[in-house]
Amino acid sequence: MTPRFVRYLPILTWGRHYDRSALTNDLVAAVIVTIMLIPQSLAYALLAGLPPEAGLYASIAPILLYAVFGTSRALAVGPVAVVSLLTASAVAQVAEQGTAGYAVAALTLAALSGGFLLLLGVFRLGFLANFLSHPVIAGFITASGILIATSQLKHILGVEGGGHTLIDMVSALVSHAGQVNPVTVLIGVTATAFLFWVRKGVKPLLVRMGAGPRLADIATKAGPVAAVVATTFAVWAFGLAERGVSVVGEVPQALPPLTLPGYAPDLIRQLAIPAILISIIGFVESISVAQTLAAKKRQRIDPNQELIGLGAANLGAAFTGGYPVTGGFSRSVVNFDAGAETPAAGAFTAIGLAVAALALTPLVYYLPNATLAATIVVAVLSLVDFAILKKTWSYSRADFAAVAATILLTLTLGVEIGVASGVILSIALHLYKTSKPHVAEVGLVPGTNHFRNIHRHDVTTDPEVLALRVDESLYFVNARFLEDLIQDRVVDGAALRHVILMCSAVNEIDYSALESLEAINLRLRDLGVGLHLSEVKGPVMDRLKTTHFLDQLNGRVFLSQYDAWTALAKPNDPAKAAE
Amino acid sequence: MTPRFVRYLPILTWGRHYDRSALTNDLVAAVIVTIMLIPQSLAYALLAGLPPEAGLYASIAPILLYAVFGTSRALAVGPVAVVSLLTASAVAQVAEQGTAGYAVAALTLAALSGGFLLLLGVFRLGFLANFLSHPVIAGFITASGILIATSQLKHILGVEGGGHTLIDMVSALVSHAGQVNPVTVLIGVTATAFLFWVRKGVKPLLVRMGAGPRLADIATKAGPVAAVVATTFAVWAFGLAERGVSVVGEVPQALPPLTLPGYAPDLIRQLAIPAILISIIGFVESISVAQTLAAKKRQRIDPNQELIGLGAANLGAAFTGGYPVTGGFSRSVVNFDAGAETPAAGAFTAIGLAVAALALTPLVYYLPNATLAATIVVAVLSLVDFAILKKTWSYSRADFAAVAATILLTLTLGVEIGVASGVILSIALHLYKTSKPHVAEVGLVPGTNHFRNIHRHDVTTDPEVLALRVDESLYFVNARFLEDLIQDRVVDGAALRHVILMCSAVNEIDYSALESLEAINLRLRDLGVGLHLSEVKGPVMDRLKTTHFLDQLNGRVFLSQYDAWTALAKPNDPAKAAE
Repeated sequence: MTPRFVRYLPILTWGRHYDRSALTNDLVAAVIVTIMLIPQSLAYALLAGLPPEAGLYASIAPILLYAVFGTSRALAVGPVAVVSLLTASAVAQVAEQGTAGYAVAALTLAALSGGFLLLLGVFRLGFLANFLSHPVIAGFITASGILIATSQLKHILGVEGGGHTLIDMVSALVSHAGQVNPVTVLIGVTATAFLFWVRKGVKPLLVRMGAGPRLADIATKAGPVAAVVATTFAVWAFGLAERGVSVVGEVPQALPPLTLPGYAPDLIRQLAIPAILISIIGFVESISVAQTLAAKKRQRIDPNQELIGLGAANLGAAFTGGYPVTGGFSRSVVNFDAGAETPAAGAFTAIGLAVAALALTPLVYYLPNATLAATIVVAVLSLVDFAILKKTWSYSRADFAAVAATILLTLTLGVEIGVASGVILSIALHLYKTSKPHVAEVGLVPGTNHFRNIHRHDVTTDPEVLALRVDESLYFVNARFLEDLIQDRVVDGAALRHVILMCSAVNEIDYSALESLEAINLRLRDLGVGLHLSEVKGPVMDRLKTTHFLDQLNGRVFLSQYDAWTALAKPNDPAKAAE
Repeated sequence: MTPRFVRYLPILTWGRHYDRSALTNDLVAAVIVTIMLIPQSLAYALLAGLPPEAGLYASIAPILLYAVFGTSRALAVGPVAVVSLLTASAVAQVAEQGTAGYAVAALTLAALSGGFLLLLGVFRLGFLANFLSHPVIAGFITASGILIATSQLKHILGVEGGGHTLIDMVSALVSHAGQVNPVTVLIGVTATAFLFWVRKGVKPLLVRMGAGPRLADIATKAGPVAAVVATTFAVWAFGLAERGVSVVGEVPQALPPLTLPGYAPDLIRQLAIPAILISIIGFVESISVAQTLAAKKRQRIDPNQELIGLGAANLGAAFTGGYPVTGGFSRSVVNFDAGAETPAAGAFTAIGLAVAALALTPLVYYLPNATLAATIVVAVLSLVDFAILKKTWSYSRADFAAVAATILLTLTLGVEIGVASGVILSIALHLYKTSKPHVAEVGLVPGTNHFRNIHRHDVTTDPEVLALRVDESLYFVNARFLEDLIQDRVVDGAALRHVILMCSAVNEIDYSALESLEAINLRLRDLGVGLHLSEVKGPVMDRLKTTHFLDQLNGRVFLSQYDAWTALAKPNDPAKAAE
């Protein structure tokens, strides 16, 4: 057994030490998670525009495959809200909801997403996910929460609806406002209110009644199950389905079927970009949860192996009647809090859900869609966080711009354009910031060997010496900036004889910046001004030594700025220099 | 007269101090540049696929307008090789060469380019040109040189040709190889050989004969005029035009006409992207030349005003029968070396060219196109510089990749895709490099208060203290990298009690990195490990103070790494720590 083989199969690591205590803990966690997942899976399938059983199927094979290939001990894989929304948005572009083509497109999306994740993992390209900055993710999640909640209003009101942007959804609701079904509204609003209360009020109540906070937490998660049971019973007992309340209806009593994703080139071309987007967003959500949980137990997550685990899970979903999945936040936290020790807990959850799919599906015939919609609305409203706007505004205008643009464009133009614009804007703003680096003119703090900004401190300077501290790596985007800056300073300073670049914060000098330095050196030489460097970092110096720049330098390289100053300056006292 | 008004009209600055000595110098320079520009203008028009007079016209109004709006004292504006190639490539996509539509498209391209440059200048967006890294420019110029030289082979061989990629051009030449005209080849090859000799051999010869090196330089530039005169005379005297030698033919005897660029939305849409590309590449070429020449005389160039100057010049070209122009390298250097002191030299050159357009055009009737092609080939081969591949390879693989990709893609897929790919690749490589920053574990150099990399130096460490120096700004692309790194180190170091991040080279912490630091802080706190910061820069600290991060920090902020070490470490000696 080679080490490489083991790396790709984390199950071989934890599986060898599996014991009775771990088994007991995993079983308990599995029971709790299974109960929570049954209504959640049905609800997210509804959100994705798929038949309810697709949600169950998407939770079975993927969990098993992740247990074999994933590195997190507590992550629970399955349908999640944001990915379900993205699926609905992508699949609606190629097929009509309710058709066979729609389900096939969802399978294809899962297959493409799985393949893409596997590729990223095998080629160790997990760092690509870093291009989604936190502000873009936060903005996207908030906007998605609003879109998802709005999309469920049609079920709570019992009217037709549609659309994938906020404006489309609201106008669809308004134009169908006449269809509102009072009984559906009663069920939907009651369920929503109940679930909000469970979320906020039950835990303190249980704690006051003597329950441990962990138990109280888990009981809170059972709220949706209670709502499902109560409203299903009500619909059955009072015959509300005949009064226009839309119910889940017939769900096949079966294990996940063997399915084939579509392979028409046209379909694949149309779904490729959404699949990449779903993969990356799903990966970012999953890895954040996995890392947070692993950190609590000093466990290690391998991001590239996680890609392989999630890739396998999505391929599993594609071939067993599911749709794109990822590691979900709430289910993973419940799994962790319930005591899951290894991925075997996930495997037991899968068995639990398989039993549910086989035996319990007739029980949800009378489950009102309004209740499922209520569970979604309450779950996703916790994703909505406008505080991020205030936080980023006070911290950095660039980050604020990224959040605001992502929220606005996701709501108005849809999820794909929203995220893509956010990513491009973040990169552009970062490049813009580094294109005008902070460059401080420094002087000697009298009585020390420290150098500080002449505009902030009382320091000693010399009109013949210009000492500039560059607070940024030098690369093509800011190379010309330095040329312009030095040129301007040289034109102003007729007495100037030496320019010293203090490079303590220069982590890289790329080839463009090297050429700019060469140009600066030549221009200064023509004017009889020396160019000197100080405090150049080891790796930067190593690289400069491979070139002729140091030979041609019309000046010297000093280890410290103080050495440079001692060698070159005939200092004035600060009062005189300020004249 | 407001200062803002003066800023937009640099002519008001130099014009007020204009005197007789400057006039004399400017007149001498103008005569020399005019003689050089006549054949060059005709040749570049040929390269752009336009009638020869377009080259003359493109040198008249643009020079005058640049003299009013530009900030360089020595820049000579007009048709240049690379921009002519880009024009040919762009215009060929919308019109057939030789048609009226072709000339109108060239005017439109100049108008769009002028408008775009003006916009960039007025909104002070000149920094956008920095996104073209030096490797991308170098690769593009080299590839363009090859493409241009190849495109002229058809004139030297006297065959038909075409295409805008290397493969297309070569296969067009091969398929027409049967048409080769021996007389044309004789003229073309002789002219090429002569011009190469002039370039390499004449200057040493003249210097040996007692001429000053500056005069010898300028005489070298007259080589093309000599070739033009000799071959024109030969064609006329021996009736070679009747033997199949293609000649320039009738050129109207006229001042630049008043022309209107096209304004069809379709045409503008098709030419918009090429116009942006031409603007930026032209601007980069022009500003480099202008800055190099200005530096020699401690003069100042305002890049944003340069955009306005070049914008006006291109608009001038669009309305007077020209095509896109920019500040050319060789003509500007000749202008400078010939003693031009102010933009008035350019104005006199324009008058000289206007006289040529009015009076001298009948003289070029028998000028063979092969001679013009020879002047182009010899001029552009000096642009081809494969040494850049070797230089960047030894300096930085990332820069090498940018050069190589730009050369390869420009040659095989055309100029637009080549440059665009180069820019995207440079940005991606930069982001990739900063996504995995250099992080050094540091220890105390015994007997000092300096800290150095534990893998490079014999330093004192403490197994309870992990001191990491981060050599990069922290932002979204590398935020997760730091999380992963610290997580890994914490899992490995069971004895660990303190993590110190030494931030002397951290020039920025964006919101994503702030959230990562918060996550790291919480995870370390859960494990009873402290997180401390040292040597945080002023602007970074100012920003952190606006957040709650410092309040929640499970550790302290130290001014220096030495303070942190003194407060936290119980040092082992290096020998023991290495165990």
